[in-house]
Amino acid sequence: MSVKIFGHQNPDTDTITSAIVLCDIETQLGNDCVSTRLGGISAETKYALDYFNHEAPEQIDSVNDNDEVMLVDHNEFQQSAENIENAVVLKVFDHHRIANFQTEGPLYYRAEPVGCTATILNKIYKEHNLTVSKQMAGLMLSAIISDTLLFKSPTTTDEDIAAAEELEKIAEVNADEYGIEMLKAGASTKDKTAEALITGDAKTFAMGNKNSRIAQINVVDVDEVFARKAEIEAAINKEIETEGYDLFILVVTDILKSNSKVLALGHDALSVEKAFDVTLDQDTAVLEGVVSRKKQVVPNITQALS
Amino acid sequence: MSVKIFGHQNPDTDTITSAIVLCDIETQLGNDCVSTRLGGISAETKYALDYFNHEAPEQIDSVNDNDEVMLVDHNEFQQSAENIENAVVLKVFDHHRIANFQTEGPLYYRAEPVGCTATILNKIYKEHNLTVSKQMAGLMLSAIISDTLLFKSPTTTDEDIAAAEELEKIAEVNADEYGIEMLKAGASTKDKTAEALITGDAKTFAMGNKNSRIAQINVVDVDEVFARKAEIEAAINKEIETEGYDLFILVVTDILKSNSKVLALGHDALSVEKAFDVTLDQDTAVLEGVVSRKKQVVPNITQALS
Repeated sequence: MSVKIFGHQNPDTDTITSAIVLCDIETQLGNDCVSTRLGGISAETKYALDYFNHEAPEQIDSVNDNDEVMLVDHNEFQQSAENIENAVVLKVFDHHRIANFQTEGPLYYRAEPVGCTATILNKIYKEHNLTVSKQMAGLMLSAIISDTLLFKSPTTTDEDIAAAEELEKIAEVNADEYGIEMLKAGASTKDKTAEALITGDAKTFAMGNKNSRIAQINVVDVDEVFARKAEIEAAINKEIETEGYDLFILVVTDILKSNSKVLALGHDALSVEKAFDVTLDQDTAVLEGVVSRKKQVVPNITQALS
Repeated sequence: MSVKIFGHQNPDTDTITSAIVLCDIETQLGNDCVSTRLGGISAETKYALDYFNHEAPEQIDSVNDNDEVMLVDHNEFQQSAENIENAVVLKVFDHHRIANFQTEGPLYYRAEPVGCTATILNKIYKEHNLTVSKQMAGLMLSAIISDTLLFKSPTTTDEDIAAAEELEKIAEVNADEYGIEMLKAGASTKDKTAEALITGDAKTFAMGNKNSRIAQINVVDVDEVFARKAEIEAAINKEIETEGYDLFILVVTDILKSNSKVLALGHDALSVEKAFDVTLDQDTAVLEGVVSRKKQVVPNITQALS
């Protein structure tokens, strides 16, 4: 049976395109695989897939016992497919911390502290002397632009920038021009329900004995979101009640100003004050310079809760 | 402060030499580091260090809060330095399963399902276009010979063999001739106390809710060990009592015949019968073709206990 390749739940552009790109790599290496996804395609990702004329991977929810799988852009089991504990993880390509992950046997695991999984996959093509097509280059470039917010996020490394410079030539686009259009395509919140806003790019983190849910949306108009504060709060409080989160943070990131306004709820909401040395005003605070969940929000909240 | 590089407790040849070799790589990359070790040097490792004229790394037991470290040849915290939970793991190079390992932030993690950490490090030299000295080649070759029992272990991959072929040329030795002498140097059990035999190369594994200790010794004379069975059993039972192991297996591997005789104690000792379809006779059984703790003993016992 084909090896299933997938990224995390609530897939973003890096997760979707990296599943496609890794499947291209494995296919070139002679391995039978299929790229899949654990959730819907965002407007931003749809823009990238349409632009480079590639279909979305097939959606799955769970894996079967002993299924052979490869993970991209995540490793924590609670962010992965249902029943992942009983699958055989052959390979992982990721750029996040490692936690809540374990295997019974040896595996290939490639994590690097770079801004994007695609930056690592771009290296893998070279290590195996494989061909990067225009289409794959465009998908990897889209992932880097998405994860680094067009190179403005503090997660951006020199390697991401160098990879993007290589890839924009192969993809035959201008990274800045293409990038701002792609980000804008995903930045409108008008057509989205409150539920969609708080679940679209949300991840659960075990922090000590606390269970935190951190959702992020990238926008060009922060006020457009906070005009709907009451509706969004109700949706978050419902999730807190159903899932038992100790803390739920919605991070609304302004992709043009490179800062974020957060809405923090749950009985550990005040940890945000300690984490960022701010005072919450009606459960909200502006975090200057904060655009990265992974590099800024998660470590600070983990520290504040410990 | 220098980044500390170390392998697992009860260091074997791969763990000691990989710490030295990674420090050579990092130094060539311009990073300040020191190779260290978490235990004594075995007779086999001493043979390799003496032959290639390199000092043993400095011994440490624990790390301090926020120390920056790199791990080789292991990742499970219970096999690592005391207080590893509070250190910052920058990089890991390993060829084992991943378990009981987590970080707060992103890191460089390189695991490959090959027979030896040195096989991976040999690739890293190439990826960065670094120079492999005669000395470093000799140390990496020693690690590959040790971990693969001179290419006889089922953990041996084509990559290990290819790496050894490259390295024996740079090290200016014949791998088979040098290898058998090195293995024999570590194979005598006469001068070792029962305590030394059961702790020299022993690792603890969390398997479900069971705590298993699996020790391995490579010998040329299995009877020499089992003539001291009563003395060894007493030492193991003392460890079981002190440490609370559910299962203790001593794997005595015949490096010439490529099989192992095991001694299994603890209240889950019978799991060995299920794991290998054998019958224990006075707590012992011969496991034909079994020479690898990682690839044969750990997975089978994990399965039997689950």
